[in-house]
Amino acid sequence: MIIMESKATQEQIEQVIKEIRRYGLKADVSKGAYRTVIGLVGDESTIPFTHFTDLPGVKEAIRIETPYKLLSKEYSKFYEGISERTIVEAGGIGVGGDELVFIAGPCAVESKQQLFTIAEGVKRAGAHILRGGVFKARSSVHSFQGLGAEGWEEAEEALSWLYEAGKKFEMPVVTEVRGESQVDLVAKYVDILQIGARNMYNQDLLTKVAKKNKPVLYKRHFGAGVEEFLSFAEYIAAEGNKNIILCERGIVPIGKGKQYSRYTLDLISIPVIQQETYLPVIVDPSHAAGRRELIFNMSCAAIASGASGLIIEVHYNPAEALVDGRQMITPDELKDVIDACQRIRKVVLPKRNES
Amino acid sequence: MIIMESKATQEQIEQVIKEIRRYGLKADVSKGAYRTVIGLVGDESTIPFTHFTDLPGVKEAIRIETPYKLLSKEYSKFYEGISERTIVEAGGIGVGGDELVFIAGPCAVESKQQLFTIAEGVKRAGAHILRGGVFKARSSVHSFQGLGAEGWEEAEEALSWLYEAGKKFEMPVVTEVRGESQVDLVAKYVDILQIGARNMYNQDLLTKVAKKNKPVLYKRHFGAGVEEFLSFAEYIAAEGNKNIILCERGIVPIGKGKQYSRYTLDLISIPVIQQETYLPVIVDPSHAAGRRELIFNMSCAAIASGASGLIIEVHYNPAEALVDGRQMITPDELKDVIDACQRIRKVVLPKRNES
Amino acid sequence: MIIMESKATQEQIEQVIKEIRRYGLKADVSKGAYRTVIGLVGDESTIPFTHFTDLPGVKEAIRIETPYKLLSKEYSKFYEGISERTIVEAGGIGVGGDELVFIAGPCAVESKQQLFTIAEGVKRAGAHILRGGVFKARSSVHSFQGLGAEGWEEAEEALSWLYEAGKKFEMPVVTEVRGESQVDLVAKYVDILQIGARNMYNQDLLTKVAKKNKPVLYKRHFGAGVEEFLSFAEYIAAEGNKNIILCERGIVPIGKGKQYSRYTLDLISIPVIQQETYLPVIVDPSHAAGRRELIFNMSCAAIASGASGLIIEVHYNPAEALVDGRQMITPDELKDVIDACQRIRKVVLPKRNES
Amino acid sequence: MIIMESKATQEQIEQVIKEIRRYGLKADVSKGAYRTVIGLVGDESTIPFTHFTDLPGVKEAIRIETPYKLLSKEYSKFYEGISERTIVEAGGIGVGGDELVFIAGPCAVESKQQLFTIAEGVKRAGAHILRGGVFKARSSVHSFQGLGAEGWEEAEEALSWLYEAGKKFEMPVVTEVRGESQVDLVAKYVDILQIGARNMYNQDLLTKVAKKNKPVLYKRHFGAGVEEFLSFAEYIAAEGNKNIILCERGIVPIGKGKQYSRYTLDLISIPVIQQETYLPVIVDPSHAAGRRELIFNMSCAAIASGASGLIIEVHYNPAEALVDGRQMITPDELKDVIDACQRIRKVVLPKRNES
Repeated sequence: MIIMESKATQEQIEQVIKEIRRYGLKADVSKGAYRTVIGLVGDESTIPFTHFTDLPGVKEAIRIETPYKLLSKEYSKFYEGISERTIVEAGGIGVGGDELVFIAGPCAVESKQQLFTIAEGVKRAGAHILRGGVFKARSSVHSFQGLGAEGWEEAEEALSWLYEAGKKFEMPVVTEVRGESQVDLVAKYVDILQIGARNMYNQDLLTKVAKKNKPVLYKRHFGAGVEEFLSFAEYIAAEGNKNIILCERGIVPIGKGKQYSRYTLDLISIPVIQQETYLPVIVDPSHAAGRRELIFNMSCAAIASGASGLIIEVHYNPAEALVDGRQMITPDELKDVIDACQRIRKVVLPKRNES
Repeated sequence: MIIMESKATQEQIEQVIKEIRRYGLKADVSKGAYRTVIGLVGDESTIPFTHFTDLPGVKEAIRIETPYKLLSKEYSKFYEGISERTIVEAGGIGVGGDELVFIAGPCAVESKQQLFTIAEGVKRAGAHILRGGVFKARSSVHSFQGLGAEGWEEAEEALSWLYEAGKKFEMPVVTEVRGESQVDLVAKYVDILQIGARNMYNQDLLTKVAKKNKPVLYKRHFGAGVEEFLSFAEYIAAEGNKNIILCERGIVPIGKGKQYSRYTLDLISIPVIQQETYLPVIVDPSHAAGRRELIFNMSCAAIASGASGLIIEVHYNPAEALVDGRQMITPDELKDVIDACQRIRKVVLPKRNES
Repeated sequence: MIIMESKATQEQIEQVIKEIRRYGLKADVSKGAYRTVIGLVGDESTIPFTHFTDLPGVKEAIRIETPYKLLSKEYSKFYEGISERTIVEAGGIGVGGDELVFIAGPCAVESKQQLFTIAEGVKRAGAHILRGGVFKARSSVHSFQGLGAEGWEEAEEALSWLYEAGKKFEMPVVTEVRGESQVDLVAKYVDILQIGARNMYNQDLLTKVAKKNKPVLYKRHFGAGVEEFLSFAEYIAAEGNKNIILCERGIVPIGKGKQYSRYTLDLISIPVIQQETYLPVIVDPSHAAGRRELIFNMSCAAIASGASGLIIEVHYNPAEALVDGRQMITPDELKDVIDACQRIRKVVLPKRNES
Repeated sequence: MIIMESKATQEQIEQVIKEIRRYGLKADVSKGAYRTVIGLVGDESTIPFTHFTDLPGVKEAIRIETPYKLLSKEYSKFYEGISERTIVEAGGIGVGGDELVFIAGPCAVESKQQLFTIAEGVKRAGAHILRGGVFKARSSVHSFQGLGAEGWEEAEEALSWLYEAGKKFEMPVVTEVRGESQVDLVAKYVDILQIGARNMYNQDLLTKVAKKNKPVLYKRHFGAGVEEFLSFAEYIAAEGNKNIILCERGIVPIGKGKQYSRYTLDLISIPVIQQETYLPVIVDPSHAAGRRELIFNMSCAAIASGASGLIIEVHYNPAEALVDGRQMITPDELKDVIDACQRIRKVVLPKRNES
């Protein structure tokens, strides 16, 4: 990270960028009101850092040791416009501030009516953002893959329902982009682009999605450590897009015997991520637990651990859902979850804000 | 499980027990005011169950499918004195009811003064039970193993301090029994016998501790699934001791890269265990997190997930502690934790009690 | 799976396919010399199977219970052209037969000269197929991403070197396709398309690669169980491409403390996969071990466990390599590995062939 | 580690030991023909090492960084009687040399006849050491716990059969000591004391077993990393007993879905352990795989990875076995395994011996 003097000229800034490129690296430039900060994207271990401090206009050159430099707390200290606890703006809703954010909706969009009924239900229950899957990531080719699997026209139609529902019920909308070929289409219709857990390591998709300059909801893979998760989030940041909402959704269970939940929810990761990076982090209790009767407690626990919000699957009649019916809750149950979470937030927020 | 008719005679009961023994099994007998229930300990798969229903005085013979039959919800339905949600009485403190229970104290007892100073601190902060390690389970033979390692006399002296501190500050006390040879001695001085995570699979120790007929604080091993945890708890129950407090304290981390906490805290296990068994379950955030700054949030999350209490390591000056100083909090910080947890309990309790 | 009578007419076959589509499923048709077999792609749980047996020309309708039906041993019994142990033809080299296959080359193609020097070395050492990465999957955006990252022209040039080296040293070539946008380009130059471990779950990439109808080298993700691995391989098979070479390359380490290897090599998966599916499976000891001094023993162990071959990273001067130098071996060391493996193969092959 | 000068007097040695004790540590003394080496047991981080070099007769004071100092390769360099690759003598059989060692026998001793029939079979097949469980570690209290569970007399009788079978068929014998109370009895009858995987962390048992000064067969726990495994083995070494045979027997599976084997066999741990310590390491394919049809390949793979031997469960009629019948092989199958392993050993041994 190169910190320019406040009175550095445009020419001096460009000279530094040129120099960075000469070493085969890319520059991540933040021009603030007071000063310009230039992050280095690429392997800086081979670069003579002292050389940069000799360039005119350079105030300081700081090496950041983590593999997620652009997202680190340290970086935020110098980077204008990024605070130590960034609020990601997503269609008018701020994620990461004092207010909790609840994202809710059906696992898969099945029909316009199904979507609108659920959208109305989750809005009434207090949700802020509407979710709904069109391109579903499924572990079996023999399972329902979402309406997106039926053709581009069907996909576009389903996306337009999402868009309309968002307008009608005044909620920004989010949906998963499962493959590179879907990025352009999906970005036309939704406010937030989701990258699913199974695509956490898909760096080509990350790069392509990042370039849309829309907020990204980015889920941790179930086999990834926290360091890996943040290192791959850096692929998004390296494209200049730091509007990233991180999401914990469970890691693979270990141990022998019966599995009572789909995944192990790693809630220690929440305060850890908040110490390591300036990004907001939310939790998906639905996929982690995989069973309706666990959602209430795990939602409460997620908020108690410090999460900035939740993403929850909701259906007016879970038994009817084409995908994941076992883990959906009703709009009424969602209301209970939200009420409880809001009360818990009041307990844990003062501690967060004093730290 | 054999359910006797309410008017079954003592002779008839004895005939059933004799019959059970004839098959090489043991009988777990509960004589209630209304009826007697007889659990089978051993491999019942080879037994002709219908044969038992033909015996005089037998009302019903029910096969329970889990490997933790004596601890299962199903068993509690017929067994008098055990409700679906048992409250374990430990030195006058009930664990598992509506009221949260906080167990706190130093990781290791280092001196009488250290113990008494901390005991006073945790009492003032609102703790109910005092903990303090005399025989420490350590991962390196080259680390401090507790005063118990210095000889039986030193061990007994340290245990007597625990006893006195408990009396003086009116808290029951708990300490770990690390090996079989320590059981008799430890049982003389403490109210609750703890079996540590590393001894979860030590069936000889489990059996020996169970026979003391004192409440047992039993920790899940970091490599154990929930089914294994409950299956081994059954070793305690099979000795007729069902005063078991289960404790989740983190499982081994998976994934590559830097570890930001000592273990992964598996909070989904809390509601899962409460569905599977009638025993209370508490959480040890200190060993799971391993870092002071994570304790507040993980304590709150544990209570939000439904835990009946916490066991927390406290020191008036964590930097001075001979063991685990990195994860200890001060009495003042403990007070903050307890206050926050009590408020969260009020949020999640109604849901528990209606289910 | 619908098995047609040997004398079933084309019309009858088409009626069955039409019927399958009417239920919203796809048909995987194998017209053999003796009879036609039709696999069902999609959720067949909702289909009245008996209905199919009533259609004219249908001999039998069999439900296969695993989520990897098209790849199961059971499927191969009826499907002509697929034996219980399929040999995948890759540029003239058969993978999965009695002869071991060794794939070797640099981790990343760095220059024409580097590639040709290594290609000559591995050929001399006894390798059959040449590997070389152009689009590298890396865990940090700040690391070298392969020549493919420098632009499409540079990527195409590097691919053409691979093509030329393959021709010159008479080895088919394999390289990783990391993203969907690279599929067309890469397929023009190489004999085998590799899908890396991090993309195991990338179903859009799988589908796109499968359609090229070239052999696919498909690596298990480090967080995936065997069932998941095979279930996702089914995405390739569902496109009609069953020329799949499976590859075990290590799973995430568990447990606390120092990591002495990059991953845990799961060699039990080798005989397990061979029992479950008719596809060949090879092992990548380089990425699993991550340390040169472990390669010899782990290569031998892989072949002893029954693997049909290995993929190994080789460099004439590992210390110079831009990527993964720590785990590369020299051509001379490769020769030792191949010699030892060939001798071990002779020990374990008779057992395989009698089973 | 304090290395004394070759001409150091007994008095000087004793002064060093006294000094070590003054710091609250224990001394592990090795008096060789040429010089005396004194290892420190306890936390040496607080000790002023330079102080020791000032004492008369001291040649060098070396800090060893690993938590398994007494077992480290570094330690063996100075310690007389311990080579970099120690051969543990167990009843006349050397484990860890060029010759492979095969330990075989029934999972549980069921009767004298069963034991003798199997003993004869494994001897004929080429086994060197006889195994047989008397005190069984079982995951359910409702399963058969071995004859040891029926009373001390029955246990002693079963142990005496083991002793007799060992004499008759000229094989040293090994059995598991599951709890502290069994140590004295078991040590009277067997040549090697086994500590099972579930007791890996049971430091009181380790200490008690170590003091018997018999060779110890010590199994890695399924949730333990290699560093932890070696750190706990150090508890045995700290009692002055370095006759330890380490054994890998599988770690907990990760990932979702069907489990096709009981555990994941971590064969990379074999060469890793051989680099880190001077102790021999063997493999238990029976418990790792849990299925008969995987034993042949996993045995071969274990030897190919460099293991010094195997411990395998054998029964003349696996279907009849009271415990683990699913994973037992017959004496004839054992012969095939041993023959194949011997041939593989010839392939991998030269590489080991040149390194």
